[in-house]
This record gives sequence, structure tokens and C-alpha cells, in this order.
Amino acid sequence: MENHQRIYLDHAATTPLCPEARDAMIRCMTEIPGNASGVYQTAREAKRYLEQARSEVARILHAFPDEIYFTSGGSESDNWALKGITFRSKPGSHIVTSAIEHPAILNTCRFLEMQGFAVSYVEPDHEGFIHPEDVRNAIRPETVLVSVMWANNEIGTIQPVSQIAEASHEAGVLFHTDAVQAAGSLPIDVHRDGIGLLSLSAHKFYGPKGIGVLYIRRGIAIEPLIHGGEQERGLRASTENVCSAVGLAAALRSTEQHQAEESTRLSSLRDQLLHELKEALPDIIVNGSMTSRLPGNLHLTIPGVDDKALIPLLDINGIEASAGSACTAGSYVESHVLKAIGVPAELLRGSLRLTLGRDSREEDINEAARSIVQTVKSLRNNHRYV
Amino acid sequence: MENHQRIYLDHAATTPLCPEARDAMIRCMTEIPGNASGVYQTAREAKRYLEQARSEVARILHAFPDEIYFTSGGSESDNWALKGITFRSKPGSHIVTSAIEHPAILNTCRFLEMQGFAVSYVEPDHEGFIHPEDVRNAIRPETVLVSVMWANNEIGTIQPVSQIAEASHEAGVLFHTDAVQAAGSLPIDVHRDGIGLLSLSAHKFYGPKGIGVLYIRRGIAIEPLIHGGEQERGLRASTENVCSAVGLAAALRSTEQHQAEESTRLSSLRDQLLHELKEALPDIIVNGSMTSRLPGNLHLTIPGVDDKALIPLLDINGIEASAGSACTAGSYVESHVLKAIGVPAELLRGSLRLTLGRDSREEDINEAARSIVQTVKSLRNNHRYV
Repeated sequence: MENHQRIYLDHAATTPLCPEARDAMIRCMTEIPGNASGVYQTAREAKRYLEQARSEVARILHAFPDEIYFTSGGSESDNWALKGITFRSKPGSHIVTSAIEHPAILNTCRFLEMQGFAVSYVEPDHEGFIHPEDVRNAIRPETVLVSVMWANNEIGTIQPVSQIAEASHEAGVLFHTDAVQAAGSLPIDVHRDGIGLLSLSAHKFYGPKGIGVLYIRRGIAIEPLIHGGEQERGLRASTENVCSAVGLAAALRSTEQHQAEESTRLSSLRDQLLHELKEALPDIIVNGSMTSRLPGNLHLTIPGVDDKALIPLLDINGIEASAGSACTAGSYVESHVLKAIGVPAELLRGSLRLTLGRDSREEDINEAARSIVQTVKSLRNNHRYV
Repeated sequence: MENHQRIYLDHAATTPLCPEARDAMIRCMTEIPGNASGVYQTAREAKRYLEQARSEVARILHAFPDEIYFTSGGSESDNWALKGITFRSKPGSHIVTSAIEHPAILNTCRFLEMQGFAVSYVEPDHEGFIHPEDVRNAIRPETVLVSVMWANNEIGTIQPVSQIAEASHEAGVLFHTDAVQAAGSLPIDVHRDGIGLLSLSAHKFYGPKGIGVLYIRRGIAIEPLIHGGEQERGLRASTENVCSAVGLAAALRSTEQHQAEESTRLSSLRDQLLHELKEALPDIIVNGSMTSRLPGNLHLTIPGVDDKALIPLLDINGIEASAGSACTAGSYVESHVLKAIGVPAELLRGSLRLTLGRDSREEDINEAARSIVQTVKSLRNNHRYV
């Protein structure tokens, strides 16, 4: 089956570079040789491209351009937000986060705990929601930051971010959100939603890999993660990655333009996919919420199936999907998200995450459903299906 | 003069992307949509590209592929090396570095001092050399790392790196070198030179911005700078920036191929430039060493001239140069390097760094020399020359 068109259903892991971003980057790579921090013409041209990209990102997020900091991606943005705030705080300072964050948050928290800071991990409910009152109850006098993701990368649950931000503010605590999965799928208004810090990653919304954003609201004091030169208003050293910033802005603009209709289209395709799978495999379980969920996300527990066998068999049949996040996909560790929402131990290994995107067509969804059903049935019959 | 061909003499700040790197990146951007950490075909293709790039870099540096870690650039690599080693050490641990390092090292050291670590800054001699015995004398029982740059980014002095590494090893201390300016200009053999950790930045050797390398010798325990997913053998979280890694490897291969002849060509052009300037302006002073110097680097003190006036006037005349490093160029701070090598206070503001590269031609050098001489003379006559 190797020569057939492959069906890519892992858009939560990464999205293909869109033509708008690719063309903008190629133009930039050809025309803009300068270092944006120089003081001569070639450098000023690079600087102009960079600042146009920054303004475009600011406009889409409803922020000021001087609140947009380019980083190397979502992981750096998350690390910077948490370490940057705590390293400016007293020893023993405290962070509130959730038990279902991305590893970029959770492993940073573990590092900070080793450095003498304290962290509380708020548990989600069975659909993966973090309740604002639980966040509020976890806040202590020494809490310096609340960090809760906008939407979950595995099960797609969208958090009540503005209420969590409000609960944080009522306690006088700064709010950070990892919006890596949300950006491109949901409208973001940092002002309306009371966001203090927000992380983005370009390659999750059809932009290039290796570039992201940390939004930092004006007036917030933060320690750099990368110390050195005076780039990014003295807060993120490194020669500016102008062409990737240009690609990020082009991709974000492109997703903004298609967001409303694409959201409707994807959630309808997603519901259709679920319907077809449910018809043939009535015992499958949907993880996460069906009311507040990323439009392209479907996360299933399939009883009696080991995803370690399922995912490679789907791959052989041309269907590209994953069990959980790509950041842990290689190692097949059990999902901390599924455990936290109460998936029983015997079902943890039967996970299938299908995430749709701009290139997903109705015929792909039908084909994927047929293939998944066939593969699951054959695995359940304990026959290898190749 | 805006329409004339501009003469770029700031290759130490950044180099234009070479065709080999650009073509490899465009091909990658078009063909490789996958996340290199997935477990299906598209992801495996991305992984294959990434690992080919890693192997190529390893070959050129005489390292093993599993010692090559891709980062977002030289600043991140420097930050990671220093913080990664000290955060794994006891409180009060000590670093030895030099007074003329890049801000990515010096500002990281200042941060580490605030975190309770200690740092000694070895002073250079008048030509900018760091003496191995001075490094040895600065090492204490609690020293965990020596970090001395391979070649200085302002004055171009090449350090006796293998002797400094040896002095460190004799005291049982790990050695890191910031080779950001050296890579592409000098052959690097991490094994021969006893390097423990080494930082590279692609855009200094005609590769893309936003990507670098930290070489970490096998067996060294280091804390991540960016915590999160399991990428880069669990030590540098972030979806892999495959296309930029491919561009980095292509650029490094290209510089390796041309290195010997380009080194001869550039040092000869540089000497010619110096000769022409000296003829017309006999009182100019060369900073740094003329025996162990980066081939394309010329750093001058021009008595009676303010570089704040000189650099913009050269820009108007189509000559792109800087006073010092681009990382501080915007802010016109006095150079810590020039102070450290003993340039008198009244001469600190008369700096001109001319750094040649692959696109520098003999006629450009002649034209640049003429233009610099004219501009300096007019400034000395206290007339604006436009």
C-alpha cells in the first residue's frame, strides 16, 4: 500500500507548512541576508521584516507588538514563562498548574521543585476540565504563577481559560496559558481573556518548526531563559530568526482567515468519523468533552486493543495517527492525561488519537474509518492484519 | 549612493545564507511535513533527514552523532552548557571563564552568580590571549567548568584552545568552548582538542538563523535548559527543527570544503585592507593578534574618530560594518573586550570592526578602503561627509 496517498491524522503533533508561510520564508531567505541588530541598511531591512511579523502576531492576539517575544517554539516559551517568573521570585515561591499539562510544563515544574520551589497540580474532572474554583483553592500566599493550558494536546478538552484567569487575578496571581494546541483553532484575545503570559508554537498552525512566541503582558518582570545579547528588548538573547518569524506570522494570519469555517468543517468531519467508528465498534469510548473540544480532535479508548500494535498497523495501511502526544510517542509511556481523567489501568494501552486538519477531506475520513475498523477487528481476532 | 552595490563587511555579525543551505532547506520544507518524533512513515522520513544532518555535523567535528544536540543557536548552546552543568552541581560550585567572552557567556555567568554559584573571569593579555596557566591558577576545588571561547567575536584573537582544555583536564575540570566565531573559519576536532562541550551557530557559517549545536561529549551529565518532551535523547525538548538542521549541515559541509583556500584568500584580503588603511591613516591601531587571528577579521582603533558617527556615514556610502558585536551594536555600549585588553578610555569610542567573508572581492576591499579613509579624514576635519 506504500504508493497510495497517505492519510495524515496527527495534526496535533505537527501540521504541514502552508504555502503562505513557505512562500514568505523563501522570499525572506532570498532577499534578507542581514542581522536585525546591526545599524546599517541590510540590518534595518531585516529588522523591518521582523517588526512587521511581530505587529501581525500582536494584531491577531489583540496584544501590543512590544508584548510579543519570538522564541524557538512552544517548549521554550513554556520553560521561559515558568522559570522566568519563579527565578525572579523568593525561594519557596509556589506555582499552581494542572495534572494534565504538556511535558514542557510538567517537567519544568519538576525541575523547579528540585530548585526549591513548590508546585500544586490541580486534578481535572473526568472530561479533562480544570475547575476555576480548584485553581483558586490551590493558590497560597506564596503563589507567583498559575499555568493552565488552553486546550489539551491529547484529549482536546478546551479549558475555561478566562474564568481560570479571573480566579487567579482575584487572588492577585499572574496567569500563564500554554496555547500551543489552541492557536489556529480558536480565537485568542489576550486582553479580553486576562492572559498574563501565553505560549505559541508555529508548527502547530501550519507554520515552520523552530519558532514560537511568548506573549508577555506589559509591566511583567521576567528573567530571561536565554541570557546574552540585547535582542527581543533584552529578554531573549540570540540573533533574530527573521525568516521563521515571518513564516509564523504568515501562518497565523492564514489560520485566522479560515478559522471560523475550518472549525465548523473539522468538527463536522470529526463527528462523522466518530459516528462511523461507533457504528462498527460500539464499545469504543471517547475521552474528553464533546461540548468544549478542539474541532479536529478525536481521542478514543478501544477496549481489547494495544495501541503499540494498532498504530504501526494503521501506518502500514497508510493512516498516520498516534496514541498520545508525539513528545512521548517514541517511548510508549502511559499517558498522564488519561490517568488523571480516570481511564482504568487496563484501558490505558488502547488509545488512539486522531487529529484532523486543513488537508483532511471527507473521503479520507471515510477511508480512515474503514481502515481503523478493519484493523481493530483483526487485532481483536488476534490475527495480524497486513 | 543607495543604488550601488553595497559592500558587506560584517560577517562576524551574520553571514548570508549559502545556496547549498538554502536549496537543502527549501527541498526539506517542500518534501518533509512530518514531526520527527512520530511513529509512522512521514515522521520516519523527517527523522531520517534529521539524523543525516546530525551525522554530517558529527563527521566534520570529529564527534559521534549521539554527541550532537541541535539547539536554536549559539546563545542557547552557551546558556545550556553553563546552566546545564552548574544546575547539576552543588550550591557554591565555581566556573572559570574569561573577561572577553560573548555576552551569552558573561550574562549567563552573572545570572548564575545571582543563583549562588561563583565565577572567576580570567583577564586576557594585550593581544586578547587567555593564558592556559592563568586558567589553571583560577581553578579551585569547587570548579565544575572552564569556558573559554575559541576565537573572539570582536578582535578575532584565536585562543590556544587545546592547551586551555589540557590545563582544565589536568585539574580534573570539564572544558566548554564557544566556537561560534571559529566554526567555518577554522578546522575543529573535538577529540584532538579535548573539548567537553562546544557551541556552534549556523548563521555564522552561511547557514540559517535560529539553529545551532551543542556538542556534548559522551558520558557528561547535563541538566536540560528546555525541559519537556523526549527529543534530542531527552535533553532538549521541542519538536525537532528538521529543515534548519538540514540547512546547518549543508552550510557546515560547504564551509569545510572551502575552508583552507578561503582562509588564505580572506587573510590576504584582510592584510591588503589593513595595508591600504595604514598607508593613508598611519595612526590607526590594530586590536588583537596578527599571528593568531580569524582570517576575515580586522578590528581597528581610529584615534580622533567617534564610531557613532563613523558607522552611519560608512552605511550611507554603502559600506556595512560595525563597531563591535551586533548583540550590543544597537546600544553603543563600550566594549568589555577592548577595555579588557587595555585600550585607553579615550580611544574606546573609535572602533571599527571589518569582517570579510565569502562574498568579499578584491575590488570591494579597495573601494571600502578608499571610502573609510575619506570618511575618517572628513570626520577628523570635523566636516560631515555625505
